Amino acid sequence: MPEESQMKQAMQAYIDHFNAADPDAVAALYTEDATVEDPVGSEPKRGREAILEFYRMAVQTGAKLSLAAPIRASHADAAAMAFDVNLQMPEGRSLIRVIDVMRFDDAGRFRSMEAYWGPSDVTPAAE
Amino acid sequence: MPEESQMKQAMQAYIDHFNAADPDAVAALYTEDATVEDPVGSEPKRGREAILEFYRMAVQTGAKLSLAAPIRASHADAAAMAFDVNLQMPEGRSLIRVIDVMRFDDAGRFRSMEAYWGPSDVTPAAE
Repeated sequence: MPEESQMKQAMQAYIDHFNAADPDAVAALYTEDATVEDPVGSEPKRGREAILEFYRMAVQTGAKLSLAAPIRASHADAAAMAFDVNLQMPEGRSLIRVIDVMRFDDAGRFRSMEAYWGPSDVTPAAE
Repeated sequence: MPEESQMKQAMQAYIDHFNAADPDAVAALYTEDATVEDPVGSEPKRGREAILEFYRMAVQTGAKLSLAAPIRASHADAAAMAFDVNLQMPEGRSLIRVIDVMRFDDAGRFRSMEAYWGPSDVTPAAE
């Protein structure tokens, strides 16, 4: 099981690579057979290729992530973080409030990601 | 599946009932056969009676909860929230940073709760 500090570093790297618009670096944080359910309630993306394609599209929106509170670890192979997504939507600048939960393999890579956000978590943002 | 607003109201009620030191009201938010895994990685408490006992002990610590960011919903029967726990520990006032994930039944009661926090999320707090 990875150390808490290792899990938190991987989650911070996720934020940083995403904000650097580097989908390859984001996808490399996942295991080959990982799953991404974003948002929770949607059909999960399965495998590194599908995950890379998902992040290629996501960074193309110009979205930027900022932590809303410090990353949390656990007493198991899992960690969670609350963050805000700022992006330009057709109707103007928007804010999406999200909590991601990641499960890890022993090497500290993400086996799974679940993104908790619903339609009520999307709001207009300051321009 | 409950509405997003219903899930968020139940999670806010959890915070409010806990802070009112009312373990019966907290436990009543759960289904009869619910599970509580707090922290993630510990043996889950199973059933309303075990859950009530857990909250009786928890509120006796004098712990108070405060949201660290707005509650998140999802596109499914789940929601998540980041909050801080302030409590008096033998070594002084402490802050525990937590993210809870709840799954709901159709009536908007918690079927399960998972609390993400590790030893690294416990820090001294201002007196």
